[in-house]
Amino acid sequence: MGYAHRVDGERKIHLKDFDPHGHADVGREEAEEKTARLCEEMTELQEMLYAASQHSVLIVLQGRDTSGKDGTIRKVTGPLNAQGCGVSSFKVPTSEELAHDFLWRVHAKAPARGQIRIFNRSHYEDVLVVRVHQLVPEKAWRARYDHINRFEELLTDSGAIILKFYLHISRKEQEQRLLEREQDPTKSWKLSTSDWQEREYWGAYTEAYEDAISRCSTSHAPWHIVPADRKWFRNLAVAETIVEALRPCKKGWLAHLEEIGRREKAAIAELRRNHASAPPHP
Amino acid sequence: MGYAHRVDGERKIHLKDFDPHGHADVGREEAEEKTARLCEEMTELQEMLYAASQHSVLIVLQGRDTSGKDGTIRKVTGPLNAQGCGVSSFKVPTSEELAHDFLWRVHAKAPARGQIRIFNRSHYEDVLVVRVHQLVPEKAWRARYDHINRFEELLTDSGAIILKFYLHISRKEQEQRLLEREQDPTKSWKLSTSDWQEREYWGAYTEAYEDAISRCSTSHAPWHIVPADRKWFRNLAVAETIVEALRPCKKGWLAHLEEIGRREKAAIAELRRNHASAPPHP
Repeated sequence: MGYAHRVDGERKIHLKDFDPHGHADVGREEAEEKTARLCEEMTELQEMLYAASQHSVLIVLQGRDTSGKDGTIRKVTGPLNAQGCGVSSFKVPTSEELAHDFLWRVHAKAPARGQIRIFNRSHYEDVLVVRVHQLVPEKAWRARYDHINRFEELLTDSGAIILKFYLHISRKEQEQRLLEREQDPTKSWKLSTSDWQEREYWGAYTEAYEDAISRCSTSHAPWHIVPADRKWFRNLAVAETIVEALRPCKKGWLAHLEEIGRREKAAIAELRRNHASAPPHP
Repeated sequence: MGYAHRVDGERKIHLKDFDPHGHADVGREEAEEKTARLCEEMTELQEMLYAASQHSVLIVLQGRDTSGKDGTIRKVTGPLNAQGCGVSSFKVPTSEELAHDFLWRVHAKAPARGQIRIFNRSHYEDVLVVRVHQLVPEKAWRARYDHINRFEELLTDSGAIILKFYLHISRKEQEQRLLEREQDPTKSWKLSTSDWQEREYWGAYTEAYEDAISRCSTSHAPWHIVPADRKWFRNLAVAETIVEALRPCKKGWLAHLEEIGRREKAAIAELRRNHASAPPHP
């Protein structure tokens, strides 16, 4: 049993059944050591993913304000090689984006094979904030769960590995973090009256998240509920989930790279046999 | 019964059941007059589509070499206002495009609300040339029919009107046109040995087209088979199909535009009542 909770198949989940604190069988120091080791392994796996270019990786980060999306990107995926890794943030849509279907701007940012792409918020906002604030009619957002599942299947059919994380934070911890932001001059730029206003909709967001996670946890693109009240636990849970999803691909990537290597060596041997200006023997 | 044949719902069609010549109850002169009138109406409809911005229009043009895709764009949709109309040609994919799912480059070119977009070739190439020349495994192209239907449903759910045309040309007429290209110095730049080579695959393409048309004729995005051996008949058929698809929207667009007008007038009246520097009375 991992540190994050993988939601398998479409079934109704209730967030109250998941402890935002995480379980007790790991301490902070041990967790930070484990995370560091996992991040190293992640970097090695990324190198092979990049070289083999058979898969892409899409990491979706969702969660309420202060749940730690930015912190996760910094701490967990920060060490990755930027040449093969990018972050896309989805904010309030522009008028051009609104003139298209809701997946248009998201599809444009889908990772190419060999690449890791992190979505800081995502197409799920279109069944979260859009639903809570009734920005489109109910009929429209209800149809989106199916559209999302089909879209994600299109990506996985093309070699994408999709990992979706809900950073699960308690109401109390959120209050704490908002108050801290007010105290800390280096964090107060992040302050926003809307964060306090959105807290009024806590229950509506809970429902919206429960539906999104329940309806869009498919075998090809499961959701992971991450206890996020303690940052070091959250980091460990996310790092572990990513590494465990990529590790099984390693063997295939290595075989593919060896095959490429064999072909190149044969081509060089051919050059040596047939050309005056051949590469020198090693 | 229109000049083009609309394929309704998923059912198996056979191209040999459709006459590439078209029916006989219209002569060239009459057809050209009708087409001219239809193109005028199309331009008026476009203006309302643009102003109301509730729908977008996606016109997909497919057909074998020399079937008249370029000619249709020039003659039928040429008169449209370029501010609200664009053409996207899909040629051999780039390596960046190939590193994504097959709909990635296509989705990026989907029309915004208010716009008409013409696809000169399209995502259907991924179940046509790709199938005929086995550029991906059968399992991969077989899965694409469903992906295409879902993708097109995503677009129509967001207000797209999708019109797909297969320009149906006979083998004999194609030979004629290829020979003409060789004779005509102003057309010989279009010549390509691959056109003659592709003719060898006539039967395989027929099968691939029949499957694409049969499997992807949905109620939201039907295919239209256009007799294309005579260019003037082809133009009439395409023009008629476009206009008849847009005409039913006209009432709704006008109502929407009137509503916008009413609101604006009320706002101006408000200005007149309350402000010293108010606009003069008309």
